[in-house]
Amino acid sequence: MNIANPYSSNCPTRKVLDRVADKWAVLVLGLLIEGPIRFNRLRRAVEGISQKMLSQTLKSLERDGLVSRKAFATVPVTVEYAITPLGQTLATTLDALRVWAETHMEEVTANQQRYDAGAKSGA
Amino acid sequence: MNIANPYSSNCPTRKVLDRVADKWAVLVLGLLIEGPIRFNRLRRAVEGISQKMLSQTLKSLERDGLVSRKAFATVPVTVEYAITPLGQTLATTLDALRVWAETHMEEVTANQQRYDAGAKSGA
Repeated sequence: MNIANPYSSNCPTRKVLDRVADKWAVLVLGLLIEGPIRFNRLRRAVEGISQKMLSQTLKSLERDGLVSRKAFATVPVTVEYAITPLGQTLATTLDALRVWAETHMEEVTANQQRYDAGAKSGA
Repeated sequence: MNIANPYSSNCPTRKVLDRVADKWAVLVLGLLIEGPIRFNRLRRAVEGISQKMLSQTLKSLERDGLVSRKAFATVPVTVEYAITPLGQTLATTLDALRVWAETHMEEVTANQQRYDAGAKSGA
C-alpha cells in the first residue's frame, strides 16, 4: 500500500497538498492560464482577495516557478504576471478538478441532502 | 474570462476547493481507492490523524457520497469504509496531482532555491 504521509516534509504528497490547499493559488493559476494579467486586474477578478494576500500568493507562485513576473517602466510601474510552462502543467491538472466539480456537484448536493434527511435505516 | 469566485457558495469551484483543501480527505480517499479499509487500519495508515479528525473526515466523505460505511456485528463492532464509484472518480482526478507532484517537485525545489538565492538581477 502506498502510504501518504503529510507529516513528512519530503513527501511529494505533502508538498502538493500544501500548494493545492491554497485556494488563492489555485484561483490565480486558473485565471493566468488564459493569458498574462496585470496585478490590479487579477485583484478585481479574484473577488474578496486582499492586496496583501494577492501579493503573497503571487510571490509564492513565482518562487515555485509556476508564475513569472514582468515589470514595465510606466508611471506608476505596471506589473504583469504570466503562467510558466511548469505552472501550465499544474493548472491543467487542477482544471480536471474544476471539471469534476461541475460534473458531479449536483450529485454531491443530492447525497448531502439524503444524508441529512437521515435516510439511514436498517443495518 | 471564466471568473472563479470562491466567495459564492454556489460556485462549483468553491465547493471543490473546500473539499480538496481538506488534506485529510484527500489522503483518506487515496488509501481507500486501493480497497475497503477498517477504521483502525486507516488511523494507523494516515500518520498523525487523530481519532476524532478521522471520524469527522469519514463522516463528511460519507455525507458527500464519496465513501460508504459498513458495520459488522462483531464484538466490538467492526466498521469498514469503502470508496464509492463517485469517490473513485474524484480520487482518480486527485491522483493526477500526486503524479504531478512526484514528476515536478524536484523542479519546484530547484526554482525555490534559485529564487531564495536572489537570482533576480536586471529588469
